[in-house]
Amino acid sequence: MLNNDAIVALATPSGAGAIAIIRISGQEAISIGNSVFKSIKNKDLRNQKTHTLHLGHIMDDTKTLDEVLVSIFKGPNSYTGENTIEISCHGSTYIQQQIIQLLLRKGCRMADAGEFTLRAFLNGKLDLSQAEAVADLISSDNEASHQIAMQQMRGGFSNEIAKLREELLNFASLIELELDFAEEDVEFADRTQFNELLNRIEFVLKRLIDSFAVGNVIKNGIPVAIVGEPNVGKSTLLNALLNEERAIVSDIAGTTRDTIEDELTIGGIGFRFIDTAGIRETQDVVESIGIKKTFEKIEQAQVVLYLSPLTPKGGTLDSENVKQVQLEIEKIKNQFPLKPLIIIGNKKDLYSNQQILNLQSQIPNILLISAKQNIGIDELKDQLLSFVNTGALRNNETIVTNTRHYDSLLKALDEISKVKYGIETNLSSDLMAIDIKEALYHFGMITGQVTNDELLGNIFANFCIGK
Amino acid sequence: MLNNDAIVALATPSGAGAIAIIRISGQEAISIGNSVFKSIKNKDLRNQKTHTLHLGHIMDDTKTLDEVLVSIFKGPNSYTGENTIEISCHGSTYIQQQIIQLLLRKGCRMADAGEFTLRAFLNGKLDLSQAEAVADLISSDNEASHQIAMQQMRGGFSNEIAKLREELLNFASLIELELDFAEEDVEFADRTQFNELLNRIEFVLKRLIDSFAVGNVIKNGIPVAIVGEPNVGKSTLLNALLNEERAIVSDIAGTTRDTIEDELTIGGIGFRFIDTAGIRETQDVVESIGIKKTFEKIEQAQVVLYLSPLTPKGGTLDSENVKQVQLEIEKIKNQFPLKPLIIIGNKKDLYSNQQILNLQSQIPNILLISAKQNIGIDELKDQLLSFVNTGALRNNETIVTNTRHYDSLLKALDEISKVKYGIETNLSSDLMAIDIKEALYHFGMITGQVTNDELLGNIFANFCIGK
Repeated sequence: MLNNDAIVALATPSGAGAIAIIRISGQEAISIGNSVFKSIKNKDLRNQKTHTLHLGHIMDDTKTLDEVLVSIFKGPNSYTGENTIEISCHGSTYIQQQIIQLLLRKGCRMADAGEFTLRAFLNGKLDLSQAEAVADLISSDNEASHQIAMQQMRGGFSNEIAKLREELLNFASLIELELDFAEEDVEFADRTQFNELLNRIEFVLKRLIDSFAVGNVIKNGIPVAIVGEPNVGKSTLLNALLNEERAIVSDIAGTTRDTIEDELTIGGIGFRFIDTAGIRETQDVVESIGIKKTFEKIEQAQVVLYLSPLTPKGGTLDSENVKQVQLEIEKIKNQFPLKPLIIIGNKKDLYSNQQILNLQSQIPNILLISAKQNIGIDELKDQLLSFVNTGALRNNETIVTNTRHYDSLLKALDEISKVKYGIETNLSSDLMAIDIKEALYHFGMITGQVTNDELLGNIFANFCIGK
Repeated sequence: MLNNDAIVALATPSGAGAIAIIRISGQEAISIGNSVFKSIKNKDLRNQKTHTLHLGHIMDDTKTLDEVLVSIFKGPNSYTGENTIEISCHGSTYIQQQIIQLLLRKGCRMADAGEFTLRAFLNGKLDLSQAEAVADLISSDNEASHQIAMQQMRGGFSNEIAKLREELLNFASLIELELDFAEEDVEFADRTQFNELLNRIEFVLKRLIDSFAVGNVIKNGIPVAIVGEPNVGKSTLLNALLNEERAIVSDIAGTTRDTIEDELTIGGIGFRFIDTAGIRETQDVVESIGIKKTFEKIEQAQVVLYLSPLTPKGGTLDSENVKQVQLEIEKIKNQFPLKPLIIIGNKKDLYSNQQILNLQSQIPNILLISAKQNIGIDELKDQLLSFVNTGALRNNETIVTNTRHYDSLLKALDEISKVKYGIETNLSSDLMAIDIKEALYHFGMITGQVTNDELLGNIFANFCIGK
């Protein structure tokens, strides 16, 4: 599977910018680069040191395509572990295309998605879970997911697994040895020590498996259903929550991007807000379909945010309205007794102190805010964050975010339990060896010590081209 | 105006990709970079050679933001002429923002649009017309505009101007000298030689001014009005013209982009197709407004492409229809006698040879094509290209594309004519010196030997941030 033919791809986002980077990796990368490069100082790229930069022009025969800077990385001291060059050219799409087409004619081929990182893996520069973290890192869009991806890329997670795998492997070989002396009924593997190791492995696996719930939330964001009728101020509320983050983004010209209004980062954690039509009781058939849909969306959410339509009119609160709100809250609580529920009353600034006390006595736990005046927004954020168990994150513990890893961890745990049961029941070494091998297999699937082409294909197909 | 405080900007397009480049320039660029960089090999960036690359992590205090490669360029051997570093980081928007924010806290400020290139100009790395070519190069989207921008960036155009300016400057100082000896009525400047130089300058200026017509067309594309009723096959025709180019683009995954259907590159030249509603005679008021609009659009176009609605039905051509087409063509010719007109008949594959002869006798110069069967498309492309005077382009002559340069050239020519008239009429040296100074001023405006803050502000404000 390991080719080292020269692959080429644009490594920067497509579109026009000041600079674009075209990356080539492979045995012949430097000599292909040299064949289209005319150095300002008449240098031959093949004679240059690794990690150096060279100014010159990309020449298509006698035609100058661009003035560029070429970076040289000599294998194994490169990202892929192979000879690599990066051409930093002017960022017009036309120029990018011309240079890539020229390189294709000179013997490169277009890189597949993730092929640079695949080569890094195959050349032992990264293990598989580190390679997967590269893709996570590129797509990380908040502090928590970024931190987890960085940790994983630096090997935090797979080091732990690899170490346990090695210990297990030691015992496995002792057990295998026992098989050779089967008739003599000896035990090379100390069962007490072995059991101790299995307990340690079980503990680690369980912790990692548990961390997936947090990891998944951090990677994909926490779904929050906003229950409230149209015009009750849902978008004003979202804007108020968004305010601070948006200000940070627009501070940096050139790095702004279209904001997806219903995805917010609060305290480094992503939240996905799901709009619903509310659950106001009605005789109307169409409306009651709406209520059914609202309940479906609440079902998918991890947190419910109920935005009440109450506003004080004149001196008093409309008691009919308050009763209606109480009813709706009751209905949500009955339907989803375990789902965290935040009850919000907007327009706090319009209430008198007496009205606030009055309201709070009728609707306990109501959080009064003013989206417009930015009152109570921080409390709301705190409440939202309180539902996220970020303890593991704060303590810098390893967190599993990848479904594939989660799956392998579950399978490994299952095999470890079987081995433990085998020891308890004095299972014969040959049968125990099978379970241990299975466990080792699942460990190896995480770190990439065990792989197959299909697995690699699936993983790297999700990468972007150029990485 | 020349600051060398450290400026920072994202140099690659915004959005997520495999790699992003953050660029810092200024006296303190390398030490600021060093303050946030932890080298894998414990290197101090300040002690590294120019044009070298270093692997490590960007650290926000003890927190790792990303694994990066840092390029070091020591002034004057950098794009800006100042100390410069480029941080090649993972391409998530989140990471880009975090690193830029960190650098801002460490003493950088956000670069203005074009500020890196402005500094390159102020530090004498580029003259003004070369700096302007950088922006043209980034926005070039076809071969011709790319070629002109490359030529201009390499100094083709401004070298010529600078050389003539120097010769003129020599004569100017001789004439100034005459002023010092005004009472003795001597002539230090040989009037015959001076006249010869002025003629040479005039010749060059006229050629450059003439080239602007071509240059403008190449930079902005040639507007072509397509005259034809709806459903007569306009979009099929555009697709047929587009076919080849689109195939090239989609060959390179990762460099594809949304195609703007009505902008095509043919033979390296950009064409902008302007859709019109046709000019079929009618009693309808609304329709006749349509005809007025069609004529307005033809007015703006440089070429008219008349797409006839003729198709052979049964054995013969509908003579009523043919007459109608003849009438419409006549009308266009009468209204725009000097505008190039291409008459197209589609669906050539449906005509018999006899019908073709018949049609050609009734409508001379009709070009029969089949957009669907790709018949006659190359001939159509050739006809479109025949209206572009690409002679200058082919002969690698200098072409002016910039309105500001064009304007300065016109003004310089005007002053040169005045000087010539002054020699003819034996104008006194002091008056002639004034005209020469004016001419020198306009030359200097092109190369940037004469500038002011407002001019520089206008030019660089059109750059993207990060360049």
